[in-house]
Amino acid sequence: MAPGAKKGILACLDAGEVIIGDGGFVFALEKRGYVKAGPWTPEAAAEHPEAVRQLHREFLRAGSNVMQTFTFYASDDKLENRGHTQRFTGQQINEAACDLAREVADEGDALVAGGVSQTPAYLSCKSETDVKAIFKKQADVFVKKNVDFLIAEYFEHVEEAEWAVQVLKSTGKAVAATLCIGPEGDLSGVGPGDCAVRLVKAGADIVGVNCHFDPETCVKTVKMMKEGVEKAGLKAHYMSQPLAFHTPDCNCQGFIDLPEFPFSLEPRILTRWDMQKYAREAYAVGIRYIGGCCGFEPYHIRALAEELAPERGFLPAGSEKHGDWGSGLEMHTKPWVRARARRDYWEKLKPASGRPLCPSMATPDSWGVTKGHADLMQQKEATSQEQLKALFDKANKKQ
Amino acid sequence: MAPGAKKGILACLDAGEVIIGDGGFVFALEKRGYVKAGPWTPEAAAEHPEAVRQLHREFLRAGSNVMQTFTFYASDDKLENRGHTQRFTGQQINEAACDLAREVADEGDALVAGGVSQTPAYLSCKSETDVKAIFKKQADVFVKKNVDFLIAEYFEHVEEAEWAVQVLKSTGKAVAATLCIGPEGDLSGVGPGDCAVRLVKAGADIVGVNCHFDPETCVKTVKMMKEGVEKAGLKAHYMSQPLAFHTPDCNCQGFIDLPEFPFSLEPRILTRWDMQKYAREAYAVGIRYIGGCCGFEPYHIRALAEELAPERGFLPAGSEKHGDWGSGLEMHTKPWVRARARRDYWEKLKPASGRPLCPSMATPDSWGVTKGHADLMQQKEATSQEQLKALFDKANKKQ
Amino acid sequence: MAPGAKKGILACLDAGEVIIGDGGFVFALEKRGYVKAGPWTPEAAAEHPEAVRQLHREFLRAGSNVMQTFTFYASDDKLENRGHTQRFTGQQINEAACDLAREVADEGDALVAGGVSQTPAYLSCKSETDVKAIFKKQADVFVKKNVDFLIAEYFEHVEEAEWAVQVLKSTGKAVAATLCIGPEGDLSGVGPGDCAVRLVKAGADIVGVNCHFDPETCVKTVKMMKEGVEKAGLKAHYMSQPLAFHTPDCNCQGFIDLPEFPFSLEPRILTRWDMQKYAREAYAVGIRYIGGCCGFEPYHIRALAEELAPERGFLPAGSEKHGDWGSGLEMHTKPWVRARARRDYWEKLKPASGRPLCPSMATPDSWGVTKGHADLMQQKEATSQEQLKALFDKANKKQ
Amino acid sequence: MAPGAKKGILACLDAGEVIIGDGGFVFALEKRGYVKAGPWTPEAAAEHPEAVRQLHREFLRAGSNVMQTFTFYASDDKLENRGHTQRFTGQQINEAACDLAREVADEGDALVAGGVSQTPAYLSCKSETDVKAIFKKQADVFVKKNVDFLIAEYFEHVEEAEWAVQVLKSTGKAVAATLCIGPEGDLSGVGPGDCAVRLVKAGADIVGVNCHFDPETCVKTVKMMKEGVEKAGLKAHYMSQPLAFHTPDCNCQGFIDLPEFPFSLEPRILTRWDMQKYAREAYAVGIRYIGGCCGFEPYHIRALAEELAPERGFLPAGSEKHGDWGSGLEMHTKPWVRARARRDYWEKLKPASGRPLCPSMATPDSWGVTKGHADLMQQKEATSQEQLKALFDKANKKQ
Repeated sequence: MAPGAKKGILACLDAGEVIIGDGGFVFALEKRGYVKAGPWTPEAAAEHPEAVRQLHREFLRAGSNVMQTFTFYASDDKLENRGHTQRFTGQQINEAACDLAREVADEGDALVAGGVSQTPAYLSCKSETDVKAIFKKQADVFVKKNVDFLIAEYFEHVEEAEWAVQVLKSTGKAVAATLCIGPEGDLSGVGPGDCAVRLVKAGADIVGVNCHFDPETCVKTVKMMKEGVEKAGLKAHYMSQPLAFHTPDCNCQGFIDLPEFPFSLEPRILTRWDMQKYAREAYAVGIRYIGGCCGFEPYHIRALAEELAPERGFLPAGSEKHGDWGSGLEMHTKPWVRARARRDYWEKLKPASGRPLCPSMATPDSWGVTKGHADLMQQKEATSQEQLKALFDKANKKQ
Repeated sequence: MAPGAKKGILACLDAGEVIIGDGGFVFALEKRGYVKAGPWTPEAAAEHPEAVRQLHREFLRAGSNVMQTFTFYASDDKLENRGHTQRFTGQQINEAACDLAREVADEGDALVAGGVSQTPAYLSCKSETDVKAIFKKQADVFVKKNVDFLIAEYFEHVEEAEWAVQVLKSTGKAVAATLCIGPEGDLSGVGPGDCAVRLVKAGADIVGVNCHFDPETCVKTVKMMKEGVEKAGLKAHYMSQPLAFHTPDCNCQGFIDLPEFPFSLEPRILTRWDMQKYAREAYAVGIRYIGGCCGFEPYHIRALAEELAPERGFLPAGSEKHGDWGSGLEMHTKPWVRARARRDYWEKLKPASGRPLCPSMATPDSWGVTKGHADLMQQKEATSQEQLKALFDKANKKQ
Repeated sequence: MAPGAKKGILACLDAGEVIIGDGGFVFALEKRGYVKAGPWTPEAAAEHPEAVRQLHREFLRAGSNVMQTFTFYASDDKLENRGHTQRFTGQQINEAACDLAREVADEGDALVAGGVSQTPAYLSCKSETDVKAIFKKQADVFVKKNVDFLIAEYFEHVEEAEWAVQVLKSTGKAVAATLCIGPEGDLSGVGPGDCAVRLVKAGADIVGVNCHFDPETCVKTVKMMKEGVEKAGLKAHYMSQPLAFHTPDCNCQGFIDLPEFPFSLEPRILTRWDMQKYAREAYAVGIRYIGGCCGFEPYHIRALAEELAPERGFLPAGSEKHGDWGSGLEMHTKPWVRARARRDYWEKLKPASGRPLCPSMATPDSWGVTKGHADLMQQKEATSQEQLKALFDKANKKQ
Repeated sequence: MAPGAKKGILACLDAGEVIIGDGGFVFALEKRGYVKAGPWTPEAAAEHPEAVRQLHREFLRAGSNVMQTFTFYASDDKLENRGHTQRFTGQQINEAACDLAREVADEGDALVAGGVSQTPAYLSCKSETDVKAIFKKQADVFVKKNVDFLIAEYFEHVEEAEWAVQVLKSTGKAVAATLCIGPEGDLSGVGPGDCAVRLVKAGADIVGVNCHFDPETCVKTVKMMKEGVEKAGLKAHYMSQPLAFHTPDCNCQGFIDLPEFPFSLEPRILTRWDMQKYAREAYAVGIRYIGGCCGFEPYHIRALAEELAPERGFLPAGSEKHGDWGSGLEMHTKPWVRARARRDYWEKLKPASGRPLCPSMATPDSWGVTKGHADLMQQKEATSQEQLKALFDKANKKQ
C-alpha cells in the first residue's frame, strides 16, 4: 500500500514526497537484550538475526520507507576499540546487517540504506587517508550488497563527515549526511549553516542532524542548516532523526552529558503525541526525510506516519492496530476513559512523571563543576569564612 | 544454564527457589504494532506469530522462568464485547498462544502457564454457572495443550477470582491467582488479607496481585495478603506482577483512572534500577514468584533476575549484553560518563523528566469532580458572591 | 466596622459567628529581623516593641478578631534552655507582650488571648507539679494583664496539654487548646478524637490543632477531633491554625522533619487563593475559629476574612487595598494580564516554582535512614555482590 | 556600626565599597495590606506612614545603605491613570515619602535616594518636553527635600530613561539609572550594552537593571552593560536590583507575562541562600550597588549583607537575630535538625515545593497563543483531518 519508494530516495524527494525513516536500533535492541550499553556494537546482526529482523519488520509495519543496515559502530577500528572479542568479523557483521535490511525491505516497498559513523581513528588524529580507508572498507560492503543509498551519520565534527561523504559519494549512490549537533554547531564551533554548506559541497544530496538532541532542538538545527544552504545559493534535501527523549537541559554535547544517560532516561521518553507534533513541525520547516534515532520505538515511527498521512495519502500497515488520537478508547466501560478518545485531550495533557522526588531538569555533568557558588567562594582567601564566623560571634555576644 | 524449573512451579517454590515471571504482552506488543489499545485483544498470537514468539524469546533470554500464554482477554465473550471482527476464533487464538509459549519455553528451561482474566459476563451479572462456563472453555484449551500450570489474573472482584480458581483447580494443575487491587482491597471493599484467604480456600496454591499499581504498592499489598493468610493459619506461596509505571497518585482503581492512561504513561516508566529495588523489596517480604505486567519490557525482567542472582546463583542469558550497575560504561571516552559505572551513582540518581511544564503527580479522573473548592461554594446560596462583590465595591468607594 | 467580638470569645462562637485568628509571629518577625530561628524566643516584645506592634496592627487590619500575645516559648525554663542571655526577664517579656496586644486590640474591636506552649520541663520528665508551676507563672501575668481568654497551643503530647488546660481553666477565663498533631495523633500515639475528648474533659472550651501541618491536613485532623468529641457525647467549639506551607510529604512529626525546615520553605508558601480554599473547607467541616500559624502573613489572614465575608457580612479594613479574586488587574495595559482578573483563573492555576532542578516533594529526614534499598542489601552477606560480579565476569567471557 | 555611607554614594563607590540597596516596597506592603496590586500606587506614605516607616527600618536593620523614597508610580499622570480617587495629592505623597526615608536614614548611616519611573505619558506618545515636565515635577520635590542622590528606575525603553536621566542630572545630584530589561535588551530592541552606553552618555553615574527578572538574569544583563560601557571607552558604576522570584521561564517582558503574576508567585520566592549566591555572583562580575526589587523582604537584604560581610568588614545590625548558614539550629533537640546547621547543607539543598500537581516552569502568556501544534495544523486544509479519519476507518475495516 505504500508509495513506490523503490523508485529511489532522490526521485521520491524530488517529487516532493515525505520519506519516513526508521528508529533507533542500539537503544531498542539494548532493551530487548541484544546490544550492550557502553560498547553499543552491532554484532547482533550476525549473532541474533531473528531479533534484528523482527525490529526491521516492526519499523516497516510502522511506516518506515527506509531500512537502515544495523551497522552502527561496525567499523573495524571501533569494534576493536570497544574491546569486544568478536565471534564475528566486522565484514561478517556488516554483510549480515545488509542481508537482513534487504530481506525485510523486500517484504514491503522500502529502500535499504547503508550507514557509516564517526571513527575513533579521526579522534586519535589519524590522517585523512587513514580515516577514509575505514569508510571505504564499509562502503565496499554496501556496494557489494547493493544497498539503495548511503548515510554518513552521527558525526560531531563536520570535517570527518565531509571525508565520509566524499568516500560514499565515490560509489555513485545517493548520499545523506547527518551530524549529531545542536544549534551551537559542531564540536569545533562550526555553526549549523556552515556545516550544511560544507556537506553539500562535499557531495551530500540530503543533509541534516541525528541523535544527541530532542526533536524540537533538531528541527531548529536543521532549519538553520537549510537557511545556510539557501543563503549560499545551493540546493539540498533535509533530514532529521532526533532522539525520542526530551532534552531541554542539554549542553552542546547533547544527551551523553545528561546524568541520566544511558540508564535512567525513561522519564524523558516522548509520547506518540509528542511525535505527531515533531512530524508536523519538521514538515513545516521543509524537512522531508523524517525519522528517529535513539529511543524511537516502532510506535513512535507510526506516529510520524499517521501525522503526515493527510500529506502522504495513506496510513502505515501498523495503523490497523491503532486508532487516531486515542479513538480506540471509545468503547471503554468508564465514561471518563471514553472521554479521552479525542485529539484535544491528548494534545493538551501535560503528563505527570509519578516521581515527586525527582526534578524536571538536570544539570549536564560537564557543567556542574564550573558553575557553583562554592567555586566562586574559593577564589577568595580562605580566611574570609573564619572572619565572617568571628563577626557573627561578636554580633551575637553583644546582645 | 537456568535451574530446573521443569520440575514444576510448586516443586520450585516449595524448595525455596525464586521464580522470575515474564513481562506485559499487551503493552509491549501495542508499542511494536500488534495490539490495539482499547480492545487489548490478543489475536496477534494467530495473526502475527513471529512477533509474539520473539517477545517470548526476549523474556526467556531476560531470565523468565515462566512463559505465560498470550491469552489476555481471549475469552469469547470478551472478544465479542470488544467489537472485533475476528479473522480467527477465540479457540484458534488460545491454541496458537499455547503453541507459541510452549515452543519458546522448550528453547530454555521454562514453564508454560495458561491464564484467564475477569470477564464482561461477571460485570453484567451473569450467573456463577455462566461465568464458570467461560473459564472452563479456556481451561479446556490449556488442558488440551498441556500447559504446566494455570493463572487466574487481573480480577477486580475476589468473588469472580474464586470462581476462576475453582474451575482451574478442577483441571488438577497447580493454580496461581492474582487480583489487580491495592492496599484498599477489591472493588467490593474486601481487604487484601481477606481476599487472599478466600483465594487460598478456593484452591489457589499461589496468591498475589498483578497490574493496576506500581511495584511499591503491589509489594505492600501482597505483604498484607501474606499476613492475612498466616493469621488464618493457612499456607500459600506469594506472587507479584506489578506495572512498570510509577503510580503514587492512583486511587483504588489503579492506573486506568490516571489521566495519562494509556497513551502518555512514558514519564512514569520504571528504570532498571527501580526494578532491582522492586526485586529486593519483594524478596524481603517473602514473595518468591516475582514478575511484571503492563509496561515491563525484557530489560526490566532482566533487572529482576540480576538483582536476585546472588540468591539464585546464576545470571540470565541476556546478561551477556549487560554490565552490572552500569559497568559497561567503564571504557567511555568522557571521564564523567565513566564515573557513572557504579552502583552508588544509579541508586542515588533522581532522574529528571526533561518536562518542566509537567507536574510530578496527577489527579485521578474519577476524583477530580468531587473535590474542588468550587463545589463547596455551590453549597452556599448563589447570592453570596454577588454580596461579596458588593462589599468590595463599597469598601473601595470609601477611600 | 467589625462585629462585637468584645462580647467575648464564647459568646461569639455560641452565636455561630466566625472568629478569624491571627498569623504566625515567630516566622514573620524572623523575616523582618527580630526573632532568631532556632531559639525562636520572643524577646522582641520588650526589645523592639514597634516591630511587634506593627505586625499586630497588620493582622488586625487583615481581619483578625484575636490578638495573641507574642509569648511563644516565653516560659522561664524555655528562655534559659535556649541559651539566650536576656536583657529582659521572662516576666518583662510576657508583660510587654500583653501590653502590645491590648494596645492594638483596642484600636479595633479585637480580643486579647494569652498563650502557653509545651515546655522543656515536660520532656525532661519533670513532675506534673513542676510543669504546672511553669504554666501558672505565665497565667499569673495574663490574669494581671487581664487578657480576654487563654490558649494552650503547640503541644505534641496531649497529657502536657491537659495539665496546661487545667492551670489555665483555674483562672476562670475561657480556654482554647490546640495540639500540633496530624491525623496520626500525638507523639504517644493517642488519636485526634481521643486527644480532643481528653482536652474537653480537662476543661477546654475550644479544641483543635495548630502549626506542624498544612491547612488540608489540619482541617482533616480537626474533623477527626470533632467526630471524637461528638461520639463521646460532649460539646466544644473547633479551631485550626495551620502552617502557611504545603506539607503533603510530612511524617507524623510535621514540618520540622522536612529537609527545608526552617530556611528553605519558600517554595511551599501558600497563595492567597490556597487560603480561601482553606477557609472554605474549614468552615464546611464546622470549624469556626479559623486562623494561622508559622508562615501566615497578614495577606493570608485577609484571604480568610474575604472568603468568609458572605457568612460574616463584612470585609476586613485591609480589603480597601485588595480586589476580590484579582479584580485589581482589570485596568492593566496588557490584555492577557487583564484576563487574570477573575476567580476562575486563579482557582485553576497550578503555579510553577521556577525551579526546574528541584523536586516537588521531599523525604522527611527521620525516614530516609531506614527505607533505602542499600539497607536491605546490607542484610545479606557481604559476599553476594562479589559473587554477582564474578557471575558477570564469567558471563561476559563466554562470548 | 556601618561605614560612612554619609560621605555620598559616589564617594563610596569610587572608594571600592559595596553598597547594599533596599528591597521592594510595593510587593512587601501589598502583603502587609497597604498597597493595592494592580494600581501599585504609594499613597501609603501619606495614609499609613507607620507601616512605611517600619519597612524602611527593617531594611536599614537588614543592612541597606540606601533608603529609597517610596514614590513608585507617584507621578501625577500615573496616579490619575490608575483611577485612584486620592485623599492625597501627588505632591503630598512624594513629600511624605521623602520625610519618612530621611527620618529612618538618620537612625542609621544611610543615604536617601529619590526615584522616578516610566510614565504613561511616554507610552501614549507625549513629546519629550511633556514627559520631561513630569520628571521635573517629581525632581523638584526631591531637591526641596534634599535627598542624597537620584534613581531613574523601571524603564522598558532606554529613550525615556535617557530623558529621565537628563532631567535628574540637571539637579546637580548623582544619578543612577536602571532599566527593567533582560539580556535581549529594551522593548525597542536596543541591547543591554548599547542601552548602558546611552545612559552613561545621558549623564548617569551608575547604570544597571531592576525588577522584571531574577538575580541570575539581572547579573547576566548588567555584565553585558558593563562590557558595552567598557568597550565604548566610558566609565560607570554598576547596580542590580532584581526580583526575589525565580524566573527562568520568562520571555523578554519579564515576570508580568508569567501566568503567576502577581498573585501566585509564592513558589518562586528565593531563599536566603539563593540571595547569598546572588550577592556573590553580582560582586564577582563587578557590580558594587547590590539591592533588590519586588519580592525582596528584609531577610533577603540581610542575606546580601551577610554574604558580603567579609569584603565589607562588618555585619548588619539585624544579624544579631541570625546565625551564619543556619548555625541557630545547633542546639535543636533532634539530631537531624542540628545536622542542618552548616553551609554545605543549605547550599546543596534543592528545596521541594510541596506541590506535586504543579509544574516547575510556566509558559509566558504572550507566547502560548502562537506556538501550538494546533495552529500549525490549521495552516493545512480543514479537510485533511476528515481525510485521515477516513483512512483509519478504511484500515480498520480491512482486517
